[in-house]
Amino acid sequence: MQQLKRLTFGAVLSIVSVQLMATQAVITNDQKQTATQLMQTAIKSDLGMEIVTSLTTEIGPRLGGSEAEERARDWGVKLGESLGFDNARIEEFTMPFWDRGHLHISLSSPYQQELYGTALGGAAPTKEKINADVVYFRDIHALTEVKDNSLTGKIVFVDGDKMVKSQTGAGYGQANQRRRIGWQHAQRSGASALVVRSVGSDSHRFPHSGMMSKDGENWADIPVIAISNPDADHLRRLHNLGKPLAISLHSESKWKGEVSSGNVILDLIGSEKPEEIVLIGGHLDSWDLGTGAVDDGAGVAITTAAAALIAKLPKRPKRTIRVVMFGAEEVGLLGAFAYAKQHEANLHNHVLATESDFGAQTIWQLVSNVNPQATLLVDEIAKILSPLGIVRGGSDVVGGGPDIIPMAAKGVPTIRLNQNGRDYFDLHHTPDDTLDKIDPDELAQNIAAYAASIYLIADSDVDLKP
Amino acid sequence: MQQLKRLTFGAVLSIVSVQLMATQAVITNDQKQTATQLMQTAIKSDLGMEIVTSLTTEIGPRLGGSEAEERARDWGVKLGESLGFDNARIEEFTMPFWDRGHLHISLSSPYQQELYGTALGGAAPTKEKINADVVYFRDIHALTEVKDNSLTGKIVFVDGDKMVKSQTGAGYGQANQRRRIGWQHAQRSGASALVVRSVGSDSHRFPHSGMMSKDGENWADIPVIAISNPDADHLRRLHNLGKPLAISLHSESKWKGEVSSGNVILDLIGSEKPEEIVLIGGHLDSWDLGTGAVDDGAGVAITTAAAALIAKLPKRPKRTIRVVMFGAEEVGLLGAFAYAKQHEANLHNHVLATESDFGAQTIWQLVSNVNPQATLLVDEIAKILSPLGIVRGGSDVVGGGPDIIPMAAKGVPTIRLNQNGRDYFDLHHTPDDTLDKIDPDELAQNIAAYAASIYLIADSDVDLKP
Repeated sequence: MQQLKRLTFGAVLSIVSVQLMATQAVITNDQKQTATQLMQTAIKSDLGMEIVTSLTTEIGPRLGGSEAEERARDWGVKLGESLGFDNARIEEFTMPFWDRGHLHISLSSPYQQELYGTALGGAAPTKEKINADVVYFRDIHALTEVKDNSLTGKIVFVDGDKMVKSQTGAGYGQANQRRRIGWQHAQRSGASALVVRSVGSDSHRFPHSGMMSKDGENWADIPVIAISNPDADHLRRLHNLGKPLAISLHSESKWKGEVSSGNVILDLIGSEKPEEIVLIGGHLDSWDLGTGAVDDGAGVAITTAAAALIAKLPKRPKRTIRVVMFGAEEVGLLGAFAYAKQHEANLHNHVLATESDFGAQTIWQLVSNVNPQATLLVDEIAKILSPLGIVRGGSDVVGGGPDIIPMAAKGVPTIRLNQNGRDYFDLHHTPDDTLDKIDPDELAQNIAAYAASIYLIADSDVDLKP
Repeated sequence: MQQLKRLTFGAVLSIVSVQLMATQAVITNDQKQTATQLMQTAIKSDLGMEIVTSLTTEIGPRLGGSEAEERARDWGVKLGESLGFDNARIEEFTMPFWDRGHLHISLSSPYQQELYGTALGGAAPTKEKINADVVYFRDIHALTEVKDNSLTGKIVFVDGDKMVKSQTGAGYGQANQRRRIGWQHAQRSGASALVVRSVGSDSHRFPHSGMMSKDGENWADIPVIAISNPDADHLRRLHNLGKPLAISLHSESKWKGEVSSGNVILDLIGSEKPEEIVLIGGHLDSWDLGTGAVDDGAGVAITTAAAALIAKLPKRPKRTIRVVMFGAEEVGLLGAFAYAKQHEANLHNHVLATESDFGAQTIWQLVSNVNPQATLLVDEIAKILSPLGIVRGGSDVVGGGPDIIPMAAKGVPTIRLNQNGRDYFDLHHTPDDTLDKIDPDELAQNIAAYAASIYLIADSDVDLKP
């Protein structure tokens, strides 16, 4: 099956390479042939799987600021050195550390039943074990209308609709509101704790973690727990039957002060314009519940493997290709902001930035936010990627991935190789984010697309600034 | 979608009813028409979903011998009374109670990582928290060769292959060996605890619970923990890398003495031969991790709803139809053995017994173990069920379901309506066994098949004894 799929890709790519014509100005025939060879190599290579297997197995879960994330940085530097990068280094930064700790949550009325929950990032601990009546809200909109101090001592449960599945992940933002801002309304209502229906499109008994939003500079003073979709369904049915609900809760999650984190930087120094940087990457940290395979071991593997394949070419591309393994993304894009600050004076030399951070399924679309001349370059790249099943999307799509946001805000041009995210939110931020969920062929397709497109941009003379 | 599927069933059934012919001796034309009407009613009815929704929501998990199982018995009696059964009662028995208690299991070398595990039924507690080196066995066969007292103080991990998926559930028996007998070899090796790869065909981070086998009259003296397939994969990869594995473990599972349980009996008294009993049922208890929707809330719902539809016919069938909601199945068929003992003197009047206990997916095959004349009756029933997508299977297949074993062993004839079990072992004995996993159309197909076949047997004069 795997072999067959790869052969199919290979056959299509061979035909394409024969048909190459030298009529396009923005990409030379040699460059096209090199890009096609990179794709052919990538789809037969196991390097991406080897990288993500090593990261998830040898390091395991790696919460931003943890000892495990530190081990992951050392792993990243050693990996870069072994793959022929011209330099590999860590750029440190400091950050506040939030620790999940132990949680126990159960239904205590109308009967005793364990619930499957997890604390949301930034939540406060219970001072002692809580057992309180539950006040049910059908959705976040209903909760926003709650009166101040009207629910003192209660536990608020915010239900909602299960996240809608889509290729683009379009349902996430809407479902995410209860996770992001629910606590602010529960807290002003005087509730002792907030329980929310998990953000996620699955029907498994796993809660999805994730950060809450700050209110100005303030994090929640109350415990905030996400419970799985089946658990939320269960509470909804009991509520609809008119049963009095109560929940027993003990959570140790809390902030634990400043710690070190860092970004790992791997460079392939450009042969003609070494000061110009084409930046790709993923984030090295993961939530602690799973082993961070699809979020974002895959992105680290895809971009590192793509650059490593380019490193094996006889000659470096003209521009520098930089792989950044961002630290502490999940807990607030902390590595991304640190990078943008540490490289502020040099961001004008970042000719492009893009991140792989949407799982491990195939890429289906290439979008961009570059200047009109460079848009033609991206158009041509999309044609070269076409045998991989990738279509050209919008040329005015801002944002190259979460960790690119701070750079893009300062004018760095972006592209994005959009992955199929239909199943991503079944796994994302859950214990189920493990290596077995990655299809090696789909991962290889990603690497082929990154290798070809990043090579072509790095070897180009086209300026991309919007 | 749901409506469409039901209309399709309905259209096929209408054609069949027009084509009915009166040429068969073993089933009259009137009986066929009644059976077909029952199927038509069943596939449009929501009664099965209402029953399993009520049981899983209002009672929740219901471990054999627990207070929740007692609430479930009361629920069962009230349900039977509300559905028009001629009598509804509880037959009590006593049993030893095993309680899962709290478990914490984590990898402590080569680094700290939480593992997703659960105690296996019958396991002993840890006396105190254990932290010990792991000795890896590739499968149960390797463990059976371990020398006595050769692993004192170690934790044994038995890996194995993930359970093979099949429509018949054929992979279960093989995968189950490590769960059943692994402890006997770990214990004689002197190990402090046994950890096994979970029995289950899924790739989720849920362990599958289930009873171990006794060794003669003895249960394990050591803790025995199943971990999820992704966790077992993780340990295997670390082991293959030559990493020294250690596990930290604290488990409270233990036996807690004798308690009460019981079977719920609902009868539709036969109009001509009330002493002759056609017994159908499911088991009322569930494992405590999920809410026992597919195992076996579905079986309780299917058989109760089927009988309840028969109860609405203008006249009772000739023979008595008895629905038994067996207690304490998961923990050793205790309700089944109690029933066979309590009704020992009357088992010769049990003309047929069959149980629904293989999930909630569609029935695809009817098998039997009855005498040759009665085999012709079952052949004819299979033809009537054919529009539901059911084929006739073997006529010498012993066993009508787990709780029928003690009766079948004493000569009670059986049939079995085999369900598609391909996805059953993704859910079975896990926290993921919840209501949302049941497809209402598939459940309704089951009820249609039970209603028609049980009606036809109960209204027949054919003796079924093998």
